[in-house]
Amino acid sequence: MAQAKRSAVRRNYPSADTLGRPEGGWRLSLYRIMFEADCEAGRRFDQAVFVVILASLAVVMADSVEFLAQRYGRVFTYLEWTFTIIFTVEYVLRLLCVRNPWRYALSFYGVVDLLAFLPSYAALLLPNLTFLIGIRVLRLLRIFRVFKLRVFADEYAMLGRALRASARKTMVFLSVVLLIVLVMGTVMYVVEGPENGFTSIPTSVYWAISTIATVGFGDITPHTPLGRFVASVMMLLGWGILAVPTGIFTMEMTLAETARRRGQMRTCQVCMTPGQDQDANYCKHCGARMEGAQAG
Amino acid sequence: MAQAKRSAVRRNYPSADTLGRPEGGWRLSLYRIMFEADCEAGRRFDQAVFVVILASLAVVMADSVEFLAQRYGRVFTYLEWTFTIIFTVEYVLRLLCVRNPWRYALSFYGVVDLLAFLPSYAALLLPNLTFLIGIRVLRLLRIFRVFKLRVFADEYAMLGRALRASARKTMVFLSVVLLIVLVMGTVMYVVEGPENGFTSIPTSVYWAISTIATVGFGDITPHTPLGRFVASVMMLLGWGILAVPTGIFTMEMTLAETARRRGQMRTCQVCMTPGQDQDANYCKHCGARMEGAQAG
Amino acid sequence: MAQAKRSAVRRNYPSADTLGRPEGGWRLSLYRIMFEADCEAGRRFDQAVFVVILASLAVVMADSVEFLAQRYGRVFTYLEWTFTIIFTVEYVLRLLCVRNPWRYALSFYGVVDLLAFLPSYAALLLPNLTFLIGIRVLRLLRIFRVFKLRVFADEYAMLGRALRASARKTMVFLSVVLLIVLVMGTVMYVVEGPENGFTSIPTSVYWAISTIATVGFGDITPHTPLGRFVASVMMLLGWGILAVPTGIFTMEMTLAETARRRGQMRTCQVCMTPGQDQDANYCKHCGARMEGAQAG
Amino acid sequence: MAQAKRSAVRRNYPSADTLGRPEGGWRLSLYRIMFEADCEAGRRFDQAVFVVILASLAVVMADSVEFLAQRYGRVFTYLEWTFTIIFTVEYVLRLLCVRNPWRYALSFYGVVDLLAFLPSYAALLLPNLTFLIGIRVLRLLRIFRVFKLRVFADEYAMLGRALRASARKTMVFLSVVLLIVLVMGTVMYVVEGPENGFTSIPTSVYWAISTIATVGFGDITPHTPLGRFVASVMMLLGWGILAVPTGIFTMEMTLAETARRRGQMRTCQVCMTPGQDQDANYCKHCGARMEGAQAG
Repeated sequence: MAQAKRSAVRRNYPSADTLGRPEGGWRLSLYRIMFEADCEAGRRFDQAVFVVILASLAVVMADSVEFLAQRYGRVFTYLEWTFTIIFTVEYVLRLLCVRNPWRYALSFYGVVDLLAFLPSYAALLLPNLTFLIGIRVLRLLRIFRVFKLRVFADEYAMLGRALRASARKTMVFLSVVLLIVLVMGTVMYVVEGPENGFTSIPTSVYWAISTIATVGFGDITPHTPLGRFVASVMMLLGWGILAVPTGIFTMEMTLAETARRRGQMRTCQVCMTPGQDQDANYCKHCGARMEGAQAG
Repeated sequence: MAQAKRSAVRRNYPSADTLGRPEGGWRLSLYRIMFEADCEAGRRFDQAVFVVILASLAVVMADSVEFLAQRYGRVFTYLEWTFTIIFTVEYVLRLLCVRNPWRYALSFYGVVDLLAFLPSYAALLLPNLTFLIGIRVLRLLRIFRVFKLRVFADEYAMLGRALRASARKTMVFLSVVLLIVLVMGTVMYVVEGPENGFTSIPTSVYWAISTIATVGFGDITPHTPLGRFVASVMMLLGWGILAVPTGIFTMEMTLAETARRRGQMRTCQVCMTPGQDQDANYCKHCGARMEGAQAG
Repeated sequence: MAQAKRSAVRRNYPSADTLGRPEGGWRLSLYRIMFEADCEAGRRFDQAVFVVILASLAVVMADSVEFLAQRYGRVFTYLEWTFTIIFTVEYVLRLLCVRNPWRYALSFYGVVDLLAFLPSYAALLLPNLTFLIGIRVLRLLRIFRVFKLRVFADEYAMLGRALRASARKTMVFLSVVLLIVLVMGTVMYVVEGPENGFTSIPTSVYWAISTIATVGFGDITPHTPLGRFVASVMMLLGWGILAVPTGIFTMEMTLAETARRRGQMRTCQVCMTPGQDQDANYCKHCGARMEGAQAG
Repeated sequence: MAQAKRSAVRRNYPSADTLGRPEGGWRLSLYRIMFEADCEAGRRFDQAVFVVILASLAVVMADSVEFLAQRYGRVFTYLEWTFTIIFTVEYVLRLLCVRNPWRYALSFYGVVDLLAFLPSYAALLLPNLTFLIGIRVLRLLRIFRVFKLRVFADEYAMLGRALRASARKTMVFLSVVLLIVLVMGTVMYVVEGPENGFTSIPTSVYWAISTIATVGFGDITPHTPLGRFVASVMMLLGWGILAVPTGIFTMEMTLAETARRRGQMRTCQVCMTPGQDQDANYCKHCGARMEGAQAG
């Protein structure tokens, strides 16, 4: 039971207790394949689902290109319905093999799984809802599950820790940036005005964000000397400000990694001096033989 | 008195002594609500002011969108005057409850509070000054006060220290950037000339800043081969130069945080001096033997 | 033999054993000049090849400029054929002097060397393949060899180590970025639609990448209020995300360099184990007392 | 003599010995004012020159704005000639008061000082050379001298050390970037071709640089699906590559600063343990009283 719980958590679904892991029979077999990744069949099922998701996404993307849609429109429609049926069957099977279908249906991935095929049926009834098929892209969120299961677990955990550690500082910083962008956007609206493309304060704020983030689309640009001066100041400002999130994140990660590596170091059991290297045979301070030293 | 002073400082207003904290009566009650954040009523007042500021800003922004202004113009005008009256009343009350009204009126936030409603009246007399209402965005500067009061104090203090520590280096660096931008702007004005959009040296300098900061609006671009070569060199230069402020800030913050964490680690149990190193045997201040010191 | 192997490896060609270093005669002399860089003649040959590559590239680039092609077209053609013949002769000589010509011909640099002149002959037969001559730029890959041989070896090795150390974290991170870009591209396709330039999902994804990487060409820009809001969020997001690869790489390099410098510091004078800490009293490997150790 | 040498070095002019510091009389007085910054008069002269340079630059910049040139053209011409005469007199005086005028005339700042007024005379003779006056901007290079003299010396020295330390790594890195840009530029020229704005290989390389440096002017943009795919890869590449110079510089600076701070630490004169804090009264290792400790 504990094992089932662990694997369910690892797969980002509600835990086994919540979903209601069946006690035996074909429903237990199905459950283990569809919700757990401990057995070979479960892993293969995960991979197959992943490939189908990618294929269905490729079709959605290709179908949005007019040139391809005109040529292969019929093929795309066939593929589209094939994927829709696969996703529908998968969803129904998932519903069948858990003891609390509602818990699954209302969980985050339950909703994502539903949205993967519902728009296709909706578009059948109401043709002008076709664009909703794009919602299928949400299925890609399952990608995270695949990564979680495998070799990148360490990297994920460490990046996550550093991001969490920087989160508060970044929020504080972001609020300052939003304030600057609001003030600067209003200033530019007043300075440049609608006749130079700064048609409203929200538009000016959009421009200010694109400038301070050094994106600079160029769809709106200052034309008056004063506006250009303000823009120049903003660009230099944004340039310096770029340093702040980078600095925060770099620091948090460096300190976390340093602490982790130091944590792997050993302490002399005689003089209690910490910071002994992993491969030390003798204490660097008192010369006592270290525990686990290789035969001299 | 000391308490009042502290809270006033925390709220970025002139200190209590300067403003003249009233000695009792309704003026003291009002003063504590409007200028101090120690009591529950004061905190709620602060939050209410913050919400009203955001709401009035939303109206100013929405009113600048032509589409919305034509539809809801009348509603916006009503709301506009409601906010103006609220701000006026708030300002008058603030004036009333301090002992030195002029001190408040001439303080930074006093001026900001005045600018929050003055443009509305000015626009009444001179309709072509309507755009000045945008000045109200300055009231958002109060955001800093809200942040100061609450949970982000640590993050603020640390970001501030790192920014101050990097300030001198950044100024030196900025002066070099300004020089590069001046020289490069003039060079591009000579190379490309007015017929390619580089209409004057200030315009060329504006272009050089947008290029070296990697914003690249694209409203002005080099067209001659030589101009493109100079631009390419500038872009690679700006790219490398981007590293400098980031490096400065990251270093200052990492060093500050490392020192802070080390400082937290051990305190002498005799003289209570903090900041003892991890491996210290004796207190560096009073020479007392540290707890957990290794056998001498 | 061991020496020949080492130098061959250093030059990025298959090792001497694989290529078949000739046992003597003019073929050995030629082999040493063309494939090894230990003797003076080999170094000079390398430099000469490098200069010819740069010259031939300059001609290819100049020939692509219509203005220059019309004026000096004939000169370019002559030079073009001169370089083609030089590269052909070099290739044939290389084939002649190794014992296993096929091994060389199928090695990475063998293919690159072939591609350097083949397109010229192909263009003679099929004039509309002229543009393939640009493939010659691939020969610049030899630049790596030149750098490898010389003074920058240390810098290369360290940058390489840091890049390899950050590779896994960066891959994980890149997968997250690709996911964000796919989702955001689809959202923008739905929000803005073909009438605003977001003609297909792939195009929208291209736009999303250019936005999140803060490039911002401006060939496609959002026009609807909602689209601009989504774009603003993406820009702020991309801005913060920029911090992640920088942070990863900075950390890996700082830690690697710190370890390297510490490793250089002291060596035990008894067992010659390097990497003793600055404050070590006893060798961590053999327990011998270090020179300059403090009185125990 | 040693003092003169030092101050001359500090002012970026050839050293006193080289220029030939006069031995006495009015020439020595003049020399000390114009070339040295030790006395009050010298400092004031430096400041006056700096102000005149800035003023003359402001006039050059204003004169390039057509709108201002038409209005105040005559005023600008008068000011222009005033500055020219001031610079000429200054140059002649500098020539007069050194013992080796040629040494000064041929030194870097000698040439810069000459270029500050020569174009004005040249423009008098050949009116179509007027644009050369812009060369005066080079005089701003003197800004470096001003900074060198004053309070920023420490910051300058440290930034300089970090830049020098990163120089070799950055050069290696830049060569890789140039190679990528050459290859990618050629690829895009082949993929997109002249009909989409990629008119020649140099132009494509210019585009590749603007893309990889995340500037993205948008004057040239890919239009074919394949071109957009290549551009997307380049943008993600450039994004990751941005991390490298930042990482190099941050590392060098952090390590340099750490070493500097550690260098300021003290060593116990009894047990020779290094790394004692600046404010330590007792050795943290053996408890011995430190030299210079404050009275306990």
